[in-house]
Amino acid sequence: MSFRIEKDTMGNVEVPSDKYWGAQTERSRNNFKIGPIGSMPLDIVYGFAYLKKAAAYANHKLGVLSEEKRDFIAQVCDEILAKKHDDQFPLVIWQTGSGTQSNMNVNEVIANRAQELAGRIIGAGEKVIQPNDDVNKSQSSNDTFPTGMHIAAYKKIIEVTIPGVTQLRDTLHKKTIEFKNVVKIGRTHLMDATPLTLGQEFSGYVSQLDHGLKALKNTLPHLAELALGGTAVGTGLNTPEGYDVIVADFIAEFTGLPFVTAENKFEALAAHDAIVESHGALKQLAVSLNKIANDIRMMASGPRSGIGEIIIPANEPGSSIMPGKVNPTQCEALTMVCAQVMGNDVAISVGGTQGHYELNVFKPMMAANILQSAELLGDACASFEENCAVGIEPNHEVIKQLLNNSLMLVTALNTKIGYYKAAEIANTAHKNGTTLKVEAINLGYVTAEDYDEWVKPEEMVGTLK
Amino acid sequence: MSFRIEKDTMGNVEVPSDKYWGAQTERSRNNFKIGPIGSMPLDIVYGFAYLKKAAAYANHKLGVLSEEKRDFIAQVCDEILAKKHDDQFPLVIWQTGSGTQSNMNVNEVIANRAQELAGRIIGAGEKVIQPNDDVNKSQSSNDTFPTGMHIAAYKKIIEVTIPGVTQLRDTLHKKTIEFKNVVKIGRTHLMDATPLTLGQEFSGYVSQLDHGLKALKNTLPHLAELALGGTAVGTGLNTPEGYDVIVADFIAEFTGLPFVTAENKFEALAAHDAIVESHGALKQLAVSLNKIANDIRMMASGPRSGIGEIIIPANEPGSSIMPGKVNPTQCEALTMVCAQVMGNDVAISVGGTQGHYELNVFKPMMAANILQSAELLGDACASFEENCAVGIEPNHEVIKQLLNNSLMLVTALNTKIGYYKAAEIANTAHKNGTTLKVEAINLGYVTAEDYDEWVKPEEMVGTLK
Amino acid sequence: MSFRIEKDTMGNVEVPSDKYWGAQTERSRNNFKIGPIGSMPLDIVYGFAYLKKAAAYANHKLGVLSEEKRDFIAQVCDEILAKKHDDQFPLVIWQTGSGTQSNMNVNEVIANRAQELAGRIIGAGEKVIQPNDDVNKSQSSNDTFPTGMHIAAYKKIIEVTIPGVTQLRDTLHKKTIEFKNVVKIGRTHLMDATPLTLGQEFSGYVSQLDHGLKALKNTLPHLAELALGGTAVGTGLNTPEGYDVIVADFIAEFTGLPFVTAENKFEALAAHDAIVESHGALKQLAVSLNKIANDIRMMASGPRSGIGEIIIPANEPGSSIMPGKVNPTQCEALTMVCAQVMGNDVAISVGGTQGHYELNVFKPMMAANILQSAELLGDACASFEENCAVGIEPNHEVIKQLLNNSLMLVTALNTKIGYYKAAEIANTAHKNGTTLKVEAINLGYVTAEDYDEWVKPEEMVGTLK
Amino acid sequence: MSFRIEKDTMGNVEVPSDKYWGAQTERSRNNFKIGPIGSMPLDIVYGFAYLKKAAAYANHKLGVLSEEKRDFIAQVCDEILAKKHDDQFPLVIWQTGSGTQSNMNVNEVIANRAQELAGRIIGAGEKVIQPNDDVNKSQSSNDTFPTGMHIAAYKKIIEVTIPGVTQLRDTLHKKTIEFKNVVKIGRTHLMDATPLTLGQEFSGYVSQLDHGLKALKNTLPHLAELALGGTAVGTGLNTPEGYDVIVADFIAEFTGLPFVTAENKFEALAAHDAIVESHGALKQLAVSLNKIANDIRMMASGPRSGIGEIIIPANEPGSSIMPGKVNPTQCEALTMVCAQVMGNDVAISVGGTQGHYELNVFKPMMAANILQSAELLGDACASFEENCAVGIEPNHEVIKQLLNNSLMLVTALNTKIGYYKAAEIANTAHKNGTTLKVEAINLGYVTAEDYDEWVKPEEMVGTLK
Repeated sequence: MSFRIEKDTMGNVEVPSDKYWGAQTERSRNNFKIGPIGSMPLDIVYGFAYLKKAAAYANHKLGVLSEEKRDFIAQVCDEILAKKHDDQFPLVIWQTGSGTQSNMNVNEVIANRAQELAGRIIGAGEKVIQPNDDVNKSQSSNDTFPTGMHIAAYKKIIEVTIPGVTQLRDTLHKKTIEFKNVVKIGRTHLMDATPLTLGQEFSGYVSQLDHGLKALKNTLPHLAELALGGTAVGTGLNTPEGYDVIVADFIAEFTGLPFVTAENKFEALAAHDAIVESHGALKQLAVSLNKIANDIRMMASGPRSGIGEIIIPANEPGSSIMPGKVNPTQCEALTMVCAQVMGNDVAISVGGTQGHYELNVFKPMMAANILQSAELLGDACASFEENCAVGIEPNHEVIKQLLNNSLMLVTALNTKIGYYKAAEIANTAHKNGTTLKVEAINLGYVTAEDYDEWVKPEEMVGTLK
Repeated sequence: MSFRIEKDTMGNVEVPSDKYWGAQTERSRNNFKIGPIGSMPLDIVYGFAYLKKAAAYANHKLGVLSEEKRDFIAQVCDEILAKKHDDQFPLVIWQTGSGTQSNMNVNEVIANRAQELAGRIIGAGEKVIQPNDDVNKSQSSNDTFPTGMHIAAYKKIIEVTIPGVTQLRDTLHKKTIEFKNVVKIGRTHLMDATPLTLGQEFSGYVSQLDHGLKALKNTLPHLAELALGGTAVGTGLNTPEGYDVIVADFIAEFTGLPFVTAENKFEALAAHDAIVESHGALKQLAVSLNKIANDIRMMASGPRSGIGEIIIPANEPGSSIMPGKVNPTQCEALTMVCAQVMGNDVAISVGGTQGHYELNVFKPMMAANILQSAELLGDACASFEENCAVGIEPNHEVIKQLLNNSLMLVTALNTKIGYYKAAEIANTAHKNGTTLKVEAINLGYVTAEDYDEWVKPEEMVGTLK
Repeated sequence: MSFRIEKDTMGNVEVPSDKYWGAQTERSRNNFKIGPIGSMPLDIVYGFAYLKKAAAYANHKLGVLSEEKRDFIAQVCDEILAKKHDDQFPLVIWQTGSGTQSNMNVNEVIANRAQELAGRIIGAGEKVIQPNDDVNKSQSSNDTFPTGMHIAAYKKIIEVTIPGVTQLRDTLHKKTIEFKNVVKIGRTHLMDATPLTLGQEFSGYVSQLDHGLKALKNTLPHLAELALGGTAVGTGLNTPEGYDVIVADFIAEFTGLPFVTAENKFEALAAHDAIVESHGALKQLAVSLNKIANDIRMMASGPRSGIGEIIIPANEPGSSIMPGKVNPTQCEALTMVCAQVMGNDVAISVGGTQGHYELNVFKPMMAANILQSAELLGDACASFEENCAVGIEPNHEVIKQLLNNSLMLVTALNTKIGYYKAAEIANTAHKNGTTLKVEAINLGYVTAEDYDEWVKPEEMVGTLK
Repeated sequence: MSFRIEKDTMGNVEVPSDKYWGAQTERSRNNFKIGPIGSMPLDIVYGFAYLKKAAAYANHKLGVLSEEKRDFIAQVCDEILAKKHDDQFPLVIWQTGSGTQSNMNVNEVIANRAQELAGRIIGAGEKVIQPNDDVNKSQSSNDTFPTGMHIAAYKKIIEVTIPGVTQLRDTLHKKTIEFKNVVKIGRTHLMDATPLTLGQEFSGYVSQLDHGLKALKNTLPHLAELALGGTAVGTGLNTPEGYDVIVADFIAEFTGLPFVTAENKFEALAAHDAIVESHGALKQLAVSLNKIANDIRMMASGPRSGIGEIIIPANEPGSSIMPGKVNPTQCEALTMVCAQVMGNDVAISVGGTQGHYELNVFKPMMAANILQSAELLGDACASFEENCAVGIEPNHEVIKQLLNNSLMLVTALNTKIGYYKAAEIANTAHKNGTTLKVEAINLGYVTAEDYDEWVKPEEMVGTLK
């Protein structure tokens, strides 16, 4: 391995020759050997690429950066966004809590790659672009990192979470319509209760996801607020007049997303309540999805000794010896994701409480957790939809049998023969292990014809709106 | 102690003669000796009182309950709301997860108290009001308990949480204006940084609470949805046509709050995502308040060996021997509340995940936790405001001294004498433990006059909007 | 209401005449109106009573307190422990995080009650006992509160948690033996699997609780360490030589529990890792109990449309119309407790992280949470044992039917006719909805006699140790 | 890209030709596109390698596997442990909750690599080793996955966590001795309190870590219990007599760690309380470390406007303009890790509660979280030790100044001139902003000589054991 010498204010550092990063990145690599290398999410790096490009444009527009420099910076940012430099970001989440070193990693890579693009030698001669003075102009780690994490989280929620959840929601909604006439036994306390339709059950799931998506969208305006322009402590020291609004506009333009400058930069640096807020909504979705996946695996349980009211797709051998054993593996993957998101919520909340004075230094941890949750939830919903939900079918035979055996249907006789006789029928059937109809006739309270006329589960389910 | 006999479908039960409750309440008392007696929050009982009265009105309006019965029920509900029967609700949170027994507790108390109001003997003769047939008409535990908990939580948030947080927010906002010219040292990573005003710091707190209040209010429409009308499984079995909308209207009228019938009753019984959602916002407020309280106690630390930039009111003897030791006790109470709310959030989320089929049976636990969080946050903010925030004063002398000693002010010289000379000044001052001004002059880079002209912290803080 | 004047270093305060408390308690009542009054657990007060008495004995033994004063203090402490003064402790959890005000509450009550016992007038004349100089001698809030909370938590775990969990464990163990020959279908992924006995299933529960109890007991030595003797910052300033060991001995003697002086007082004041540690074990028990209660309610589900393999006691009317609907209410109460304990664990951990320098100021919150968890778990286990576990019976008919219908039994034929023929039998039975035996004979692979000889579920369950 | 055809009971699947995995792995890759590929920790794979080799040895010893097959299996396992096949395990955490597919991934890789080692063509001709019949002999996913995760977690704790924490503990202990005579101001409630030594402060940290390590070690016997031998539901169906003990012995031998067969296999499959238990101890360590890191960064804060009592190493440029700004970056990395571990604890606990019947299907998620926590804590402690703790130095000048300015020293005069005069001195000094000595002399209560004789902070710190 060959090295070149890079320097910073503390002196010289050896950096691998084939890498664009510089002294500060290298120091961080050596000082923070915590967990797998390169754990800082690339989505954060891409967020930085958007903001560095936007900063260059804003700085140029405000007359503090030349067009040539702006274009060099923008060109490298575009390359980063085209995933051409993914191997240039070796740092870990567990570094300084301001993410300073990842900010410098981006600055150094942009500067050195620009040097190369300009036909010069990296590490030799004058730098065409200075990492601090040019790439980081009108910026500080303290406002860039939260900006990068807002961009990354917002994009992930828009591009992965919401589409994934919506895909599942839409399929569940189709099932609601498909199953609207499938009358089945209801269950409360896990015990038999009065009937409803399978469509009604699924409509509850759809309603959960609709409320969850609404809750998530409610959080987006806070997440759209960008810290950029606050610089070191929120005062905007060393930024040109009007910079914060203009740079947010450029970010909005480059990402196609409605980012705005934060109305209060002190909040935006010292607290990350926007991350707490959006993740709270992700956690709510996890809570909802856990309920849905649990119901589906319980209703699909069997094939002989479970509930067995629905059939889910067989995607892989459940057991080499056991035909019909279709394990609810997608439910399992999804509920594991839900548990993870619930854990991540605590990590994020703990981090969120610990801002001190002008800076919260739990930024990379908070960013990594919200990105993981947003991605896992979106992916898991899509996977669950494609490999499970879309193929759910009622097992009509089982549903009918369980419904007809149910003692709860006796409720329908209350208005015909009175509560006490109805209860006697039900009690007798329960004791004898027989059906309501058999005992209703045996006891002489109802004829077979009347029974069939009066006990109609499909009339006990109300109207599905 | 004397007893009377009450009965239910399982037989006779002895109940204390001086109590209105009946057999099912008494069974629950005996079967669930878990934790302190009477732990079921009275706010839930009051929520029930609203809904029982509303149900009586709706049932009457729809022709299924006599005016006389309606009025008896309403009269007892009004007594309950006037806190005349607080000792009639002895049950615990840790009962059946549907809250059935608390629903029956309310039904039984209303029926027996009505018997008394009608001039009859409790437990003798015909009941003027039947607990199940009349008080619980068109209802089930499964839709009443979630309705009761939504009413209770909504009211608590409106009446305690939001006013408490707003009271604190408004005082912090006044401080923002009051302190707008108090220039002080900023701190990032707990380390000295560039200056800002004390008002700017406080504006960050205000922004946090503004965002938090907005987030909390965003959750209220979900919490305003009432399950009532869903009865046992969400189908509305045994309710008259139009009942769900009418009963919600009556609840809205009686409470003066914008309650509506849930658009999907299956969701409203089987999931309690609205509680998860609103509590998520309470947790966000806890995260914010923790940051604020931490900052204030750190800035008030001392009197000699801490930061000491602000002075907080002395409300109680901090130490009998140590003058000036004003412990930040309000900060401590508030941050303990924040930790509790963070814990409650996990309890609620765990409960929220575990709905099964048509019913979630973690209702009382979820209700108790959100009520505790909502009350503690509101109360703690009000207490913090009255006993601490309102009296916060800058310690101008300390602030000025720390500001003037700061080496960060050298930044202001960068544009005058260049970065390297500026850094040399700062380095020398750091090494010698002197001030920038002393070394700037000693090194011959700046005159005393120029120094005073150029290094003006108040010009480094930007514009406070 | 009449008042008397009490004073402290800040001046005069009006205190209700019929109360023993003094100025500092009254100030706290007024300054911390957060949540229900009197929320500070009485168990903490009793812990204080033990330690105040022990301190008086140690101080006397070391020659710094007269025998008369020792005996006055001890007498009031005994009265407090006899629950004669429960109404004298009105303070809330949400006070100063060191619990100073509750320490003073105890000091004041002891001093004023002693005044009364000495035949003097409270608030008049010389005090026979001084709250600070005598009752608090050789103490500080900073070492008394953690001592009080260790005493309270240790006692609660010994007196409530361990007995409750053990009671349940022993009954489950009896069931293990009772059910050792009840062969039933196993289930993995909620799907049918190879058989085991019901006793084996229950043995898993017993093993969980055995491991949990062991884990809990592992934490007790840390919890047995007492901070007393550390005084204000851990150095033991103002305590007589040898005091810390002697006072811990007296506490051990008075409580009958193996308390010792903490080996490091700085840890004991500034961190509450012992609370974190013991609560971690309580949380583990909650995790285990949640699994157990879930299994039991799923196995008891039905009566017609669930699993129905076991029958649990009917303790209260499940539904007035639905015979056989025995709701698993004890499971519901227990799992709600489990969720609460999981939440409390987060509150305690958050509090535990936030000790600063020489003191952790989340003491009352941490104490209240561990006491609640310890009590709820113990009570809920006892309730679950008495009202559910003890009465669990197998539903032999259902168990046999589900077992015999199972397709998993085909595994037994593998070694006789080969995997492929066995699989063909199972597949055909699954497709036709018939039994293995029918298809095994139809396909001509096995005779009826051979089938009965070879397919014996009871030989597939291994040996239960 | 070229492919070969692999098959399983569901039919043919195309697999990349250059990979050893087979049909079931490939199906999983396609069915679970959730999060980054290959997220299943390699440590789990290595755990599997140990157990597959051990199973081959046990099967051979018990006469059910040939020596040739044993050796082929062992050879590939050794290659896997030598990290030669890291690219052969592409599956994700978010698969089936039993980890079946990762078990099959290992089985398939071993079988196909053995085919190659035997000089045969993968996917052609008879398999020298069958993935199910040979590699998985006497096993089920249900007992292998929990065995693999116990091996992996145990090893990680032994090899990374305990050494990392111990390394930090030992350095802090050295500091305890080094700093034993450095008398400084104590702080409670963040406010000035009586003095102690810096060594005493550090001794509290050491005590925390000692207790934490003890707590962690207490959990290891549970974690050392292996599920292997339980097969599908815990009964050990299809295992030779004595297999469970023998296979655990081989695992102990191969890993050099004290693994034993689980005393109850039903617990070992259906619950993962051992993971919950060990992670509880990791979480306790996180709580402790958070306190320690917080203290250190607060004491190192400054350089001018903070506490500044200690100096920590400067590892990277804190700020290009600000000399002396040494950001506490190692504290930040460590506390971010602590927050993550607290979150992971919730994820693990939630997963732990959700075992159903004979199987817990949150295995991969629980395994991934405990491995992450164990690694991050160990790494972060080592990093913190090497890059921060080892270089901590007292700033004697600041310490002395803060100590001597403290008004708390007046406590030493109480016994000489009485409490009231002492308080007057302190009050006056506080009011005038002067020192105790100045005012003591001015007030005429003490001579300069007496003051120096009586007020000796070094005599207020007790004896450091």
